[in-house]
Amino acid sequence: MKLILDVDTGIDDALAIAYALGREEDELLAVTCCFGNVEVEKAVGNTLRILRLFGAEEIPVYGGENTLFAGEEFIPDPICERVHGRNGIGEVQLDEALRRSEPEDAVAYMARMAAQYGEDLLIVATAAMTNLARFIKAYPDEAAKVGNITVMGGALTVPGNITRFAEANIAADPEAAKFVLESGIPITMVGLDVTLKTMMDAEAMVQLLSPWAEDGGEAGEKLISMVRYYCLNEAGEEGERMGAIHDPLAVAAALQPGLVQSFDSSLTVETDGVSRGRTIGDIRKIKQREHSVKVCIDVDVDYFMEDFVRTVQKAIHRI
Amino acid sequence: MKLILDVDTGIDDALAIAYALGREEDELLAVTCCFGNVEVEKAVGNTLRILRLFGAEEIPVYGGENTLFAGEEFIPDPICERVHGRNGIGEVQLDEALRRSEPEDAVAYMARMAAQYGEDLLIVATAAMTNLARFIKAYPDEAAKVGNITVMGGALTVPGNITRFAEANIAADPEAAKFVLESGIPITMVGLDVTLKTMMDAEAMVQLLSPWAEDGGEAGEKLISMVRYYCLNEAGEEGERMGAIHDPLAVAAALQPGLVQSFDSSLTVETDGVSRGRTIGDIRKIKQREHSVKVCIDVDVDYFMEDFVRTVQKAIHRI
Repeated sequence: MKLILDVDTGIDDALAIAYALGREEDELLAVTCCFGNVEVEKAVGNTLRILRLFGAEEIPVYGGENTLFAGEEFIPDPICERVHGRNGIGEVQLDEALRRSEPEDAVAYMARMAAQYGEDLLIVATAAMTNLARFIKAYPDEAAKVGNITVMGGALTVPGNITRFAEANIAADPEAAKFVLESGIPITMVGLDVTLKTMMDAEAMVQLLSPWAEDGGEAGEKLISMVRYYCLNEAGEEGERMGAIHDPLAVAAALQPGLVQSFDSSLTVETDGVSRGRTIGDIRKIKQREHSVKVCIDVDVDYFMEDFVRTVQKAIHRI
Repeated sequence: MKLILDVDTGIDDALAIAYALGREEDELLAVTCCFGNVEVEKAVGNTLRILRLFGAEEIPVYGGENTLFAGEEFIPDPICERVHGRNGIGEVQLDEALRRSEPEDAVAYMARMAAQYGEDLLIVATAAMTNLARFIKAYPDEAAKVGNITVMGGALTVPGNITRFAEANIAADPEAAKFVLESGIPITMVGLDVTLKTMMDAEAMVQLLSPWAEDGGEAGEKLISMVRYYCLNEAGEEGERMGAIHDPLAVAAALQPGLVQSFDSSLTVETDGVSRGRTIGDIRKIKQREHSVKVCIDVDVDYFMEDFVRTVQKAIHRI
């Protein structure tokens, strides 16, 4: 399949990019950047540097706007800065990229690729849903042609991770997420409902990823350093130091749909009050026989973890 | 199967009792009463009168305590009074019952039947989960023997109906629901996630139920009057007058498990703050391979509605 990753790099976005690069069966057309963990400009810079780290600077990077769907400037949440570090990649230092981002807007690029590839195109968004919302709003016909749009975001059956109600990618721009989920365009939602099943503590995670460092050289070591930072700063329920493989799971679910179990639902996003950013069923549509959102609820964790480690390892070895 | 209904009668509890009476394949052993729509004493009185209305006074009624799991006196929510009327059955007047409730406590009765019938016993609770919580706490071995415990209650993937977060049966005693759902005892949850799929407006509902009045005499007419009251007072999302067949769906799902689709989850109930009474995934247990709660998420509505009307009609005709 042809793949566009829409990211806010971000530590687990870096892992998602590495995972996509390791998928020899699929083609990563480009990485588009939105905001979320960090502002768009920082996400673009980190994405370019990650692509250089993997010797993949042939893959173009497109930036979106740094304004919310409702028009205001985006400002990162302090929780995201704590989890991903001030530079967005766990204070790990990477070589400057040799290539710049493309002049074309991320959303215009999505539309162009949708027109070109139609149902062979997958879009996986692991950031705020603002680029996606603009894409669906400005180019509804092209959006309807895409083979599948998968988002990492939301928390329907579990609490959020920014507030008790809101997951980070939704919290970053609730109006955008509401527009996307209510649009009727088929969306596969890989939310905390399923990504938290990949949660583990820093020690177990570093142990799991250790094959990346064995003969991987710089790229593997840098990724492991980022993940260690991330696990030490994403606090679990009881204050323990845990991390989950959120964004790569969304890419894996898009490329291997049999990996996850889901149910169909019509969702909306609350935009007012304390529960701003809560993903929840849209009871105006509850009696419909067809629903546009696939809510992922379970995953074969052991299979995914093994696939994740091995696929990223391929990306490391392609250098 | 042997069935105990645990109710807070309540209009849709009356429908659930009628449905259970119409199930010739199954045996309604007794109706136990908790609070929720109304106080226990009122639920007991309404239940006895409903059983008389259906000529079923051979079925015994057991009352529980009118105190919350945490110990305070129960006071009904004004929303419940609006929906079910001051008398709990839509201001419909029924003949006084000839039989009184039994002297044995509802919870002790549940334990005695669980010991006697084991996996042939089903318990369906359509009230606050207080009797269930006391049963599981005081008689864990007996509770583990029961074939299936099904509850009408909760709202995992949709908003609540008392607050944005809390469904009525949970809101009536969040601590009880938390104890039940966290207990590890297998629970089938028939919440608003699935019961709202039966929602219809007053006119459509009365039309659907019209066969009950054709040759049903008093029982059919009284039930229809209750349902009309209920549909005119349970406001839908946009303020329209809608009602859903909540409680009978729980009985139907318990007796015909193939009727509903579900997924397994480990749930808890929030007991503090604005979201008191919210049913939500327990992320401390998210990595477990087995989960004790079956969350019902879909139903063949047409089949159920037809089954519901026909089964209650059998109860009307048995008089």
